[in-house]
Amino acid sequence: MTSESAKTGLYEQIAAVADGQLTVTAIVEELLEQIEQKDTTVQAWSYLDRNTVLKQATELDRGPALPARGLIFAAKDNYDTHDMPTAYGSPIHTGHQPGRDAASVASLRIAGALLLGKTVTTEFAHVYPGPTRNPWNPEHTPGGSSSGSAAAVASGMVPAALGSQTTGSVIRPAAFCGTVGFKPSYGVINASGMLANAPSFDTIGIFTRSVDDASVMYSLLTGEPITALETAPVKSMRIGFCRTPYWQRADEEARVITEQAADTLARAGAHVTDFEAADVFAGLSELNQQVSGYEFARTVAHERLYAADQLSDDLRDGRMQTGLQTRYAEYIEAQKKFQIARQKLDAAFADIDIIIGLPAPGAAPVGLRRTGDPIFNMPWTTLHTPAMTLPLFRAANGLPIGLQVCARRYHDQHLLRCASGIAELFS
Amino acid sequence: MTSESAKTGLYEQIAAVADGQLTVTAIVEELLEQIEQKDTTVQAWSYLDRNTVLKQATELDRGPALPARGLIFAAKDNYDTHDMPTAYGSPIHTGHQPGRDAASVASLRIAGALLLGKTVTTEFAHVYPGPTRNPWNPEHTPGGSSSGSAAAVASGMVPAALGSQTTGSVIRPAAFCGTVGFKPSYGVINASGMLANAPSFDTIGIFTRSVDDASVMYSLLTGEPITALETAPVKSMRIGFCRTPYWQRADEEARVITEQAADTLARAGAHVTDFEAADVFAGLSELNQQVSGYEFARTVAHERLYAADQLSDDLRDGRMQTGLQTRYAEYIEAQKKFQIARQKLDAAFADIDIIIGLPAPGAAPVGLRRTGDPIFNMPWTTLHTPAMTLPLFRAANGLPIGLQVCARRYHDQHLLRCASGIAELFS
Repeated sequence: MTSESAKTGLYEQIAAVADGQLTVTAIVEELLEQIEQKDTTVQAWSYLDRNTVLKQATELDRGPALPARGLIFAAKDNYDTHDMPTAYGSPIHTGHQPGRDAASVASLRIAGALLLGKTVTTEFAHVYPGPTRNPWNPEHTPGGSSSGSAAAVASGMVPAALGSQTTGSVIRPAAFCGTVGFKPSYGVINASGMLANAPSFDTIGIFTRSVDDASVMYSLLTGEPITALETAPVKSMRIGFCRTPYWQRADEEARVITEQAADTLARAGAHVTDFEAADVFAGLSELNQQVSGYEFARTVAHERLYAADQLSDDLRDGRMQTGLQTRYAEYIEAQKKFQIARQKLDAAFADIDIIIGLPAPGAAPVGLRRTGDPIFNMPWTTLHTPAMTLPLFRAANGLPIGLQVCARRYHDQHLLRCASGIAELFS
Repeated sequence: MTSESAKTGLYEQIAAVADGQLTVTAIVEELLEQIEQKDTTVQAWSYLDRNTVLKQATELDRGPALPARGLIFAAKDNYDTHDMPTAYGSPIHTGHQPGRDAASVASLRIAGALLLGKTVTTEFAHVYPGPTRNPWNPEHTPGGSSSGSAAAVASGMVPAALGSQTTGSVIRPAAFCGTVGFKPSYGVINASGMLANAPSFDTIGIFTRSVDDASVMYSLLTGEPITALETAPVKSMRIGFCRTPYWQRADEEARVITEQAADTLARAGAHVTDFEAADVFAGLSELNQQVSGYEFARTVAHERLYAADQLSDDLRDGRMQTGLQTRYAEYIEAQKKFQIARQKLDAAFADIDIIIGLPAPGAAPVGLRRTGDPIFNMPWTTLHTPAMTLPLFRAANGLPIGLQVCARRYHDQHLLRCASGIAELFS
């Protein structure tokens, strides 16, 4: 899906710019060329101004050395940007111009990274889709809600993109589009300036072409120096294979591929065990819907009051309606249960390094009207653990099938190292 | 401090409007009169447009019955409002007009409440003060960061106001100005659309003249029907008296008043015990500063990049600097320790209903340059418990001294009932 030079990692690309072997302008020009070729079909971008970014590239080339000069990224259109309109995927806010950058956007810019443009989000990062198509087959959904970020990275139009996940909005589109998708532990990357959906779950996400590139983005967002990622060897790894209680909702093809992946990891020397933790999962899906709904209905209170007729039926009759029907006492009880489930999951990680499972019920479904089922993402978002999609496999129809890898809450760097080892084994 | 009719509670005022005995317009006119008289000295408001609010009051009077019609409130100027400029207490954003309302502002408006105007916040809700003065003595600080909200409610210019607390920005100004200040459990009231400071701690807050009024605001913000608050009897109450490890940082006068309050509660039949929990407090202040700093430095990344020269020295050399010096590994370790401390505190609440202590080290200090020490608020914000200031006492110089009352995380309604009982005992 990507051009030859796009295969260079972010680490090498930044080094090449620092050494004077490559310019920011040259990188941007090549990406704009890719966009020219591909975006008519893919429709990943909600805003992109060629002249502005070329001017900014020139300024960066003329300016001082900076740690991320040469890194070009995109941001989902629910991230505020002071110099690009931000419409949150809703006609209510078409043309809206925020006054400041989201924390993560400005943090990357401080390091010398260049924001290429804004990518399509579903309506308020919920389920009603934008125009984006799957780069592997335009008749299939790219997933959502971070549709544009996933599709833009997958098709080589940009090497890195910010997305967000409230249920499955990073891990699932990454799987459908065949990119690495990384949702860090809840709260670790400052999400301010990103429009809320359900604040108890909203987490920033990173789309890249490789685990190494995800590590570069993670270092920049946490304010740490960019260093080469250490790879954890698979043979020392204690892996929990978590089918979840929802296993039968997945396609047989996806289940078989994941079972085979677990076997391959075991044959390579990993200690693979079944991870069930039935008490952690009990009732989780219903409780998640109550809390997501309760919070989302209040997040969009402005639109309910002033522009209810411009909300989609999917939003009005879905999460918002659930939220208005959920009582305060139910919401509080659910939050208390999540606290206990998170403690139980922490304890369950005593014996394992990482969990593997499905990032989605199968390859991207046909049709653009629905963005797919987030059931295999819901537990990890609810429980605040880091999670990653590794784009390792293909379905019979040629579309990507990913592997989801999760680690204990706050063990994000450990997850990056283990994911690197697993990706290497399957490469 | 307040006019006669302002002594009516919100519950009664809403009922009077519903019964046709009072109009929204009449209430607004009286508040504007109070503002006319008092705000030249107090300077609580950052934005207020008389004509617009009188027009909105007329529309509400002519419109359908709504559950909160007759409730007039203010919002701190770190809450986005689609029809009033929002400058976050910073010259960088003077005149900035957001595109939508914060979740809590719109939720109150949906219920028929009227937003009177915006109140002064310190710079980005940190420590650099705005012009607001303490209504009891204009030479003294009103506290911060919710300076305007506290002072506006205390001086009878508005019966209810939204504020926010990241360390001690609701509980402390409420104590200094002599109002009820309520910081609910972290996360329970949707904080989206309120500018972040340190997202792991940022909590919306409520200023009112009574516990009953705080309960009305809490019901509206949680989407529950407004009902009369039940009062928990003091004589059945198990109270932990928590001096905290910082007790010696308080004035002797404030310490003596609080000791006497504990004695009065015990004489009234409450079971009062010393609450120490040394392991919960160990290292908490330093860890709080690391996490607050780490997150705040990223929240203001936009301003660091584009307008660093317009940041105050207090901000640049204070929390921001701490944050830039804090490493990712330290930040993560602190977050892990908070998880454990919160579990320990939950467990400690098995034997007690509520905790009492100081909301501030004493009465409002003289001078407008500093907003006071938040050390007695830091633990409860860090540990996510609900907390309330009850304005029960007076210092020798006539300024208010409050009592802080805290409950177990998520036991907000229990706190309201207990606080009502305590307030009744001292009334």
